[in-house]
Amino acid sequence: MPVFERHVFVCTNVRPAGAPRPSCTTDGTSPVHTAIQQAAKAAGLAGSQVRINKSGCLDQCEHGPTVVVYPDAVWYGNVRPEDAEEIVQEHLIAGRPVERLRIADACINAKTCPHRA
Amino acid sequence: MPVFERHVFVCTNVRPAGAPRPSCTTDGTSPVHTAIQQAAKAAGLAGSQVRINKSGCLDQCEHGPTVVVYPDAVWYGNVRPEDAEEIVQEHLIAGRPVERLRIADACINAKTCPHRA
Repeated sequence: MPVFERHVFVCTNVRPAGAPRPSCTTDGTSPVHTAIQQAAKAAGLAGSQVRINKSGCLDQCEHGPTVVVYPDAVWYGNVRPEDAEEIVQEHLIAGRPVERLRIADACINAKTCPHRA
Repeated sequence: MPVFERHVFVCTNVRPAGAPRPSCTTDGTSPVHTAIQQAAKAAGLAGSQVRINKSGCLDQCEHGPTVVVYPDAVWYGNVRPEDAEEIVQEHLIAGRPVERLRIADACINAKTCPHRA
């Protein structure tokens, strides 16, 4: 397969102060992106295997900082840089999504997400 | 499935003048992103079904502007705003990737891509 085995998108969105929905970063730089990228590199994952990508708003703002991993379509919320190693070792290498970080099904892409009230 | 049926990432990366690899946009705004987003909306695709996302560098720079559609992992290159309608109608609605826009397998995520010479 020439495509990435896994393609990780980390939201770097930032909204103006006072916006009705929260932002995943404060200034467009993402310590979470940097941490996952560094952990993947340290683990020896090749750039042709896995890509840790920045993305625009992933629209799960109340759960930010958010991360989505494709092609699995596994969504993580409230991700901190300290979670990077576990995401890399467990999910990207061992293929086991990190359950404790997953956004609840009832919240993903749902206007009825209770956190959006 | 609560996840998006399809999640489209459009590269908006811009490099400084003189950079060794090309950029997918000239100033960070992406007419391709706008066109696909508008075509999806006009076609009645709900935001909970399909998301047209901006992304950072997707690393297929010699084929830009580039687009990747997940969970299919279908890569498109040299995408123009005029291609938006076909991507939406054929791929996002009918489920048939637009073959004429696909990046060749030999080029995707390949340092040996002949266009990178």
